[in-house]
Amino acid sequence: MPTIVIAYHSSNHHTEAVALEVAKGAESTGASVIVHNIENPVERLWSDLSAADCIIFGSPTYMGDVSAVFKTFAEQTSKPWFGQEWKNKLAAGFTNSGTPAGDKLTTLQSMTILAAQHGMVWVNCGVMPSVYTGDGKNLNRFGHYLGLATMSDNSPVSPTNPAAEDRETARQFGIHVAQATARWASGQKAA
Amino acid sequence: MPTIVIAYHSSNHHTEAVALEVAKGAESTGASVIVHNIENPVERLWSDLSAADCIIFGSPTYMGDVSAVFKTFAEQTSKPWFGQEWKNKLAAGFTNSGTPAGDKLTTLQSMTILAAQHGMVWVNCGVMPSVYTGDGKNLNRFGHYLGLATMSDNSPVSPTNPAAEDRETARQFGIHVAQATARWASGQKAA
Amino acid sequence: MPTIVIAYHSSNHHTEAVALEVAKGAESTGASVIVHNIENPVERLWSDLSAADCIIFGSPTYMGDVSAVFKTFAEQTSKPWFGQEWKNKLAAGFTNSGTPAGDKLTTLQSMTILAAQHGMVWVNCGVMPSVYTGDGKNLNRFGHYLGLATMSDNSPVSPTNPAAEDRETARQFGIHVAQATARWASGQKAA
Amino acid sequence: MPTIVIAYHSSNHHTEAVALEVAKGAESTGASVIVHNIENPVERLWSDLSAADCIIFGSPTYMGDVSAVFKTFAEQTSKPWFGQEWKNKLAAGFTNSGTPAGDKLTTLQSMTILAAQHGMVWVNCGVMPSVYTGDGKNLNRFGHYLGLATMSDNSPVSPTNPAAEDRETARQFGIHVAQATARWASGQKAA
Repeated sequence: MPTIVIAYHSSNHHTEAVALEVAKGAESTGASVIVHNIENPVERLWSDLSAADCIIFGSPTYMGDVSAVFKTFAEQTSKPWFGQEWKNKLAAGFTNSGTPAGDKLTTLQSMTILAAQHGMVWVNCGVMPSVYTGDGKNLNRFGHYLGLATMSDNSPVSPTNPAAEDRETARQFGIHVAQATARWASGQKAA
Repeated sequence: MPTIVIAYHSSNHHTEAVALEVAKGAESTGASVIVHNIENPVERLWSDLSAADCIIFGSPTYMGDVSAVFKTFAEQTSKPWFGQEWKNKLAAGFTNSGTPAGDKLTTLQSMTILAAQHGMVWVNCGVMPSVYTGDGKNLNRFGHYLGLATMSDNSPVSPTNPAAEDRETARQFGIHVAQATARWASGQKAA
Repeated sequence: MPTIVIAYHSSNHHTEAVALEVAKGAESTGASVIVHNIENPVERLWSDLSAADCIIFGSPTYMGDVSAVFKTFAEQTSKPWFGQEWKNKLAAGFTNSGTPAGDKLTTLQSMTILAAQHGMVWVNCGVMPSVYTGDGKNLNRFGHYLGLATMSDNSPVSPTNPAAEDRETARQFGIHVAQATARWASGQKAA
Repeated sequence: MPTIVIAYHSSNHHTEAVALEVAKGAESTGASVIVHNIENPVERLWSDLSAADCIIFGSPTYMGDVSAVFKTFAEQTSKPWFGQEWKNKLAAGFTNSGTPAGDKLTTLQSMTILAAQHGMVWVNCGVMPSVYTGDGKNLNRFGHYLGLATMSDNSPVSPTNPAAEDRETARQFGIHVAQATARWASGQKAA
């Protein structure tokens, strides 16, 4: 069974809510999913990351980039980076902020670069915007592709904050990443 | 046998030389590699792309982004994009320019976005800079990770233009992408 | 009187409509504005660009980057680039696409890199999202900052396509860039 | 006399050395330059930033983006951001890392986005690579344009670490930004 670790930061539970939806989607495929809040990491965080087939990064977008808490985590990954211990793991990413675009793309770009430095393989969002599919579900309503991008306002987390359609997009993204992980994990590694 | 298509543009044969080194590396693993110059495409370009397990994009960096010829090709891919026909193919990219950085990263970012829009899975460079491995081979000498980045000057193509170490990095990149493709192709697709 | 050239590409008049709104805003400050469609350039395009205090770049976002037509223009600027003839001109940019984000940021990033290579000084969007100012006008409704980003659908251009609030944001952006140009033009150049 | 604040982070004095060279260049034009280490900020940091005509951001590139310390500072700027108190200040940026490219561009992009969110006006590197000017000085030897990018290795700071040509590029960048600041400061602000 392929193992996915979701390593996220969330100050006010909005990004956390997205993390849980991504997990729900991934688990629905039969994947084993471990969700870690990287702000207050438990001891097994690093061994879980080391054992994962896929790591999904999550961070709010603050001032147009990953949060400082997420960046602190990213810098701690320099230890496995130096020996390229995460090479050929899968990676993916998601972010949440208060506007539709809100420079969320810079956050996703930062995550792709982090994954690239590790030699990981990047799984994109994989959910076509409903405006193009015509499925009427308002999925991927902002048109981000490099990862999952959702929106919430400053009110407390609720079933509609982040919005229901963003939560559904998050579950679809979780399914997509988990299916890629299953395929990758079952593929024959080069000798 | 996994199939890789290298779709590149080259005005003065420098980027083409890199394409051929990438192909050499990939073929050394047993992959089937088809190299297409997208400036003067042969009729089977689009059927080859459609059948490929992995597409490697190649473009010089001109004025800080992919070339206009490459961008024309990228726009032509809107046809398979609309139906997400390339979803879950692997993708990777390379670029060449006249300075070590030379905003080659913007070109690689443009390629990752293109792949993301298609729902493809992105394979990064995978070659750790020799400055960190201490292998003395001067591989990935500029420290790019999102794809392969090489340098040439305006003199004609020769075994040292692009430089020998960049050519070797290109072959290593080709091996890395081909191994990922073999693994991905042999993995069990989700039902 | 400061002179601004708007150099844009538009396939279906949507980006052109934005260009005209930007021009309207800029002209309202007393600036002299020349609007050039770069797809079918008139002879004086290059002398107008050479004489401008500020150049505003405009392009639709196609497949996550500037259009191939715009990129062709960008490559033609390598001539003034080589001698850094545009150094210390102001620059700004705008883009239009079919989704709120739609990877428009990559297009704006490509334009900033182009301006950077020319040694130009980049004027950002300068219009705070209404969601933060609470002005109720729905300005900068997607939350882009690096330049102006608007949305239209595939229906023909009309007063509401691109949307009225995007058109108003475009005029505000035009005012902002024109005010910066007036200030810059009246400032004392270094000897 | 125009005032420039250099707000930098440096773990091992390499980025600090660059900051001091930038200051030296800027001061040679008659500008008033205040250099702040943002890791251990003195009380007047925020009033100095508030009073500055231009803010130059500096950060090492760690794992392909600004450092977590710099990002913490960036998030603290959300206070002046909310009221757009820094709107129409000039901004510029520099970064240092251990490889020629080393994804320094992502760091500079993050800084441009930060400046854009503040409505600041971005001054680019302004130093043409010597490989194109033929001045034989090896300036801007890696070909970055969006800001200043230098390289050092892990050995202690010395006159040749960062390299002498990078230090000279830093001074030229300081002169360029200071001249832009003088021009901008002397220009007539819109009523």
